[in-house]
Amino acid sequence: MKMYDRSGFPNPARIRIVLSGKGLDNDVEFVPVDLIAAEHKQQAFLDKNPSGVVPVLELDDGTLISEATAITEYLDNLDGDPIFTGRTPLEKGLIHMMQRRAEAMVNDPVGIYFHHGTPGLGAALQAYKSPEWQGRSDWAERNRQAVEAGMRYFDHVLENREFVAVDYFSMADITVFAGLAFAEAAGLSVGEELKNLRAWRARVAELPSVKNRTGQQFLAEDARRLGF
Amino acid sequence: MKMYDRSGFPNPARIRIVLSGKGLDNDVEFVPVDLIAAEHKQQAFLDKNPSGVVPVLELDDGTLISEATAITEYLDNLDGDPIFTGRTPLEKGLIHMMQRRAEAMVNDPVGIYFHHGTPGLGAALQAYKSPEWQGRSDWAERNRQAVEAGMRYFDHVLENREFVAVDYFSMADITVFAGLAFAEAAGLSVGEELKNLRAWRARVAELPSVKNRTGQQFLAEDARRLGF
Repeated sequence: MKMYDRSGFPNPARIRIVLSGKGLDNDVEFVPVDLIAAEHKQQAFLDKNPSGVVPVLELDDGTLISEATAITEYLDNLDGDPIFTGRTPLEKGLIHMMQRRAEAMVNDPVGIYFHHGTPGLGAALQAYKSPEWQGRSDWAERNRQAVEAGMRYFDHVLENREFVAVDYFSMADITVFAGLAFAEAAGLSVGEELKNLRAWRARVAELPSVKNRTGQQFLAEDARRLGF
Repeated sequence: MKMYDRSGFPNPARIRIVLSGKGLDNDVEFVPVDLIAAEHKQQAFLDKNPSGVVPVLELDDGTLISEATAITEYLDNLDGDPIFTGRTPLEKGLIHMMQRRAEAMVNDPVGIYFHHGTPGLGAALQAYKSPEWQGRSDWAERNRQAVEAGMRYFDHVLENREFVAVDYFSMADITVFAGLAFAEAAGLSVGEELKNLRAWRARVAELPSVKNRTGQQFLAEDARRLGF
């Protein structure tokens, strides 16, 4: 298998955690995509994924799978023991509910804030922003507030629970963890008062499949390059 | 089980197709939610689903599952034969990829166009639009164009394929079908030139699990009430 991605970015990080948790690290050849040079918006990449986002998994027969949830479903079910996407109907339902909620409440508004409220990915990708949104600080601010609300929501969820969706570390936790790391890189920290969320994040960061894969190094290379 | 939804709306329609296809129609009590009166944005409903959208499934033990994909995963796996979400790892991956692509390329921009380019759900829900977007026709127009591009994409996908994701009718087809019905209700028709997409839609409308559940009656009641 080949994985077209870029180390340190939020959605690639989600899949790298899954690969590690499934013991598949050595079955994948990573092919770096130069996001800073907007390689993912060029035709050669769009032929692999018309949505123009990483990561993309290419199987040995040439089949292409994109979207983090879809790649996770594929990899997690290969051995017949879906530890990240749920073993029972109820687990599958709860995990997909909370992972979608995480995307809508945290990861998506962080992405909008990143592109509209910070230098984003730099000059090469300015063309892909909405022209009418250039300098629209209300749009960035609205999404910053959405991220804060999303963090409060997950802090509340974790008040009486060890993990986000079910009683073990699942795809939903991975999505929230990557979303928070992306938020930190964009300058949106988890408030000191969100003690449940901070404690959960600290626990997750120590899990074998997560450790040294994201955490503090997340996006750091690109953040330095972009000067924030 | 109870399903909080409203007949004729796009995401409830997705679940009603799944219920029919799984033979579960008679196992669910439908509880109507008055979307026109913004019942889904009031606290009693938000306690069931903080995202404030229908449908929501309530199991007999009180467990709540929201998000169309999550409810579909739950219902589809109850009998151990997931005919809508995929029986193999590859099918699961491809179905989740195409269903997410359908949401991003068709259903989501139709939703934005519906709220910003038409009367939407009427006066009671105006408060939930972004104030800075009132009258922002560029935003509606951008999303109208996105819907058209999404329709062209799926027409292309269906050039050499009978169904959207795999070689049978899946969750991805359901999402596209509901998205197109929502688009029609919002005044965005599938162009005559998109012959593959139109032929696929006609075939899907005749499937037993779909027939008489959505199709031409889709949103018609509310569309009449809102005057478009």
